[in-house]
Amino acid sequence: MDAPARAIDLNADVGERPGDAGVADDEAIMAGVSSVNVACGFHAGDGETMHRVCEAAVRHHKAIGAHVSFLDREGFGRRDLKVEPALLRDQVTQQIAALQATAVVAGGHVRYVKPHGALYHRASVDPVHAQAVLEAVRDAIGATDAPLKLLAPAGSELLQAASARGVDAVAEGFADRAYRADGTLVPRGQEGALLAPEAALTQALTLADSGRYRSLCLHSDTPGAAALAVALRDRLIGAGYEIRPFA
Amino acid sequence: MDAPARAIDLNADVGERPGDAGVADDEAIMAGVSSVNVACGFHAGDGETMHRVCEAAVRHHKAIGAHVSFLDREGFGRRDLKVEPALLRDQVTQQIAALQATAVVAGGHVRYVKPHGALYHRASVDPVHAQAVLEAVRDAIGATDAPLKLLAPAGSELLQAASARGVDAVAEGFADRAYRADGTLVPRGQEGALLAPEAALTQALTLADSGRYRSLCLHSDTPGAAALAVALRDRLIGAGYEIRPFA
Amino acid sequence: MDAPARAIDLNADVGERPGDAGVADDEAIMAGVSSVNVACGFHAGDGETMHRVCEAAVRHHKAIGAHVSFLDREGFGRRDLKVEPALLRDQVTQQIAALQATAVVAGGHVRYVKPHGALYHRASVDPVHAQAVLEAVRDAIGATDAPLKLLAPAGSELLQAASARGVDAVAEGFADRAYRADGTLVPRGQEGALLAPEAALTQALTLADSGRYRSLCLHSDTPGAAALAVALRDRLIGAGYEIRPFA
Amino acid sequence: MDAPARAIDLNADVGERPGDAGVADDEAIMAGVSSVNVACGFHAGDGETMHRVCEAAVRHHKAIGAHVSFLDREGFGRRDLKVEPALLRDQVTQQIAALQATAVVAGGHVRYVKPHGALYHRASVDPVHAQAVLEAVRDAIGATDAPLKLLAPAGSELLQAASARGVDAVAEGFADRAYRADGTLVPRGQEGALLAPEAALTQALTLADSGRYRSLCLHSDTPGAAALAVALRDRLIGAGYEIRPFA
Repeated sequence: MDAPARAIDLNADVGERPGDAGVADDEAIMAGVSSVNVACGFHAGDGETMHRVCEAAVRHHKAIGAHVSFLDREGFGRRDLKVEPALLRDQVTQQIAALQATAVVAGGHVRYVKPHGALYHRASVDPVHAQAVLEAVRDAIGATDAPLKLLAPAGSELLQAASARGVDAVAEGFADRAYRADGTLVPRGQEGALLAPEAALTQALTLADSGRYRSLCLHSDTPGAAALAVALRDRLIGAGYEIRPFA
Repeated sequence: MDAPARAIDLNADVGERPGDAGVADDEAIMAGVSSVNVACGFHAGDGETMHRVCEAAVRHHKAIGAHVSFLDREGFGRRDLKVEPALLRDQVTQQIAALQATAVVAGGHVRYVKPHGALYHRASVDPVHAQAVLEAVRDAIGATDAPLKLLAPAGSELLQAASARGVDAVAEGFADRAYRADGTLVPRGQEGALLAPEAALTQALTLADSGRYRSLCLHSDTPGAAALAVALRDRLIGAGYEIRPFA
Repeated sequence: MDAPARAIDLNADVGERPGDAGVADDEAIMAGVSSVNVACGFHAGDGETMHRVCEAAVRHHKAIGAHVSFLDREGFGRRDLKVEPALLRDQVTQQIAALQATAVVAGGHVRYVKPHGALYHRASVDPVHAQAVLEAVRDAIGATDAPLKLLAPAGSELLQAASARGVDAVAEGFADRAYRADGTLVPRGQEGALLAPEAALTQALTLADSGRYRSLCLHSDTPGAAALAVALRDRLIGAGYEIRPFA
Repeated sequence: MDAPARAIDLNADVGERPGDAGVADDEAIMAGVSSVNVACGFHAGDGETMHRVCEAAVRHHKAIGAHVSFLDREGFGRRDLKVEPALLRDQVTQQIAALQATAVVAGGHVRYVKPHGALYHRASVDPVHAQAVLEAVRDAIGATDAPLKLLAPAGSELLQAASARGVDAVAEGFADRAYRADGTLVPRGQEGALLAPEAALTQALTLADSGRYRSLCLHSDTPGAAALAVALRDRLIGAGYEIRPFA
């Protein structure tokens, strides 16, 4: 009984590195997770990676998400750009549309949207940017077979504003990042910000058990990410969880 | 009577230069033409130019076309890249989808597709690339309120292959480029390749009168392009033509 | 007598548009000015435009300046990025070095540096960014036959900080932009920010006569810029000025 | 005695991934190799990665090489572009100059040049492109404390043409790629093109013992590359080799 309450999603970023090596890494990490955040060309990715990753996601039955970013290939989407809200809404719209069109060709559909990098942080705390993202997500609904969901930080402005805009948003936690007592993350660059694998496994279980998160994020750009993803999946299944896309 | 036979379209490229100066130039040339080929981010353009140009096109009642290109911002889409057909189809699909999503936000719709630069030349002569473009155009139909048309060189492989793929393609001529006796263009860089304004006006009328072309293209990146567009419009109207989008 | 006091420089931006049309426009504006600010690939420009513009500048005896920018091709260098000072110094260093190497192949030398767009504004008011730019300019000296100069806004932090860093900086004014009573520019986008040609000619003479400026900048991306440059040159020569590079 | 004949260089690509994770991977692989090919911004890399990698190379006493590419960030330098030889020479010049300027700030010097990706293959077989690269390498000499060397495929056109141009070129082999009987590589994508770690170690020793190669290349974008580099270093040292930069 109570199986739905025990379901959890694992998500990771893909489509950020060109060529065979990048796609091979992406497929490796797909073995562990249930949802993949696909770079849509604004911080990384291009037609080829988008298509190959969507094909692999369809083949492996993973949920496809649009990993939307500020337009910043030069800075990998990590620069906190000043972008007018109307332009930001357009840019998010374009990224979702481009990935949706690609996913359909590959036999799938975009199921959700997750902001990347600086946009993730900006939209989490800034209501104007949050609204621009939410409008783009909401208006993208018509082009797909079902409304798109949003993946957002637990407790964020973005998450709170979503329901007012009619967007179904889901909270995520970070398996491999250390949390402070107040529930915020230890900033990158500080001692201990990134958890060692065993600590990440333990924390993931704690986060899942808290019931606050529908999805847990694994960072895919660290050595050993694919192995960690599989270990995490095993640990959660061993604890009685079902790994299942939230969208 | 016979008004439909006297209708002709004028098209020009827009959305290729960032910022206020670029958009101002685009609006100036819109005064003369009936259709605008909007850069979709692959050779030029970004969310802002795409949106601003679409808004202006809606305001001025101009037909919006997706000016699709090889992925080549660095070379402005003029480099003849080797691209696998499946990737090319995806990339054309993505460009159409991104512009369509933007146009809808701006209150309009993409009506047609025109390849840009090296892709225009490649798809005109190479059946494999022509097919990739045509598949993307055909499969984009579902996302819009009507099938997309294709703008292609008169007599090209691309034009001939279109009907077999179920795509309605329209032939265009060049008002300001010199033609050789065999109907091909004098290559750029050769003496006399670009016509002076008065010669362009005369040639445009000849091309229109030939009945071979549904649309005439004006190059928008030469000094005086906007003035030439208006002069061309006046000359054609004076000769009994109606300037009307083909799509 | 006193001829040196009557010398003035005219500068304009070049190398920002690819292809023949862009280079043709650049050559047209070179007829009027004495110094050209060459885009170095960070906001616009590439190997081809850099080389062609340097060749043209050598042929027409114009001073070559490095138009250095934040790394922001996507935003044309107009986005106010947050960049660590040490990185900014490196990026300015790289741009100068790349243009210097190109200029030498074309038979010339980089004579000065002018920040572009958002970097121009940022370095004008922010001492940390000003210092990063100045260190790059100063350290670039060794690679050339003479120290590089800096072109900076009159009254700016950047200009004031230069001498402390051992950089010879020169103040510029804007011929075609309206000034407020306090000597600052009317912001772009406000009514009357851009002067009409005749008003620009009059203002240029006033600025030159004030003795506060060694160089006057003309914006090259507005229609008619080349004609305005020549008219400005004529007006200044008619008033007894010699148009001469400051560097 | 005969120590010099037993010296061999190991080289790997660095500076291709942004951010902390990319630099961390680069430092890991530096533990194994003696020379690093630094991306110069044309296929990957930017001011930050170039600087951080140069600093790390200086700290670890590794030789710095300019990994020069066609201008193709979008295609990671793997697209075989058609580039005019004069433009190609300029672009190679610019990349060397940008890296040289960065290396000097970081306390080092560029010692050699290695073409990347499609340019590596193109310049290896095409005398016109080979000459363009060689001219850029030769003319870059003046800016450094010693002539730059060139790293090129054994038996290539590029290698043969170098001496005629006064460039000291060195042959490299591939530790982790399978060779055919005629000495050419099994093409990527074919079965067995990439050697498993143990086979790579064995082959590296064979290549070193042949005396045909002054340097062996390890591909850094495969999982486990850093570990393989260290294992390779150990194996070669165990066999009596000294791992030493060729430049």
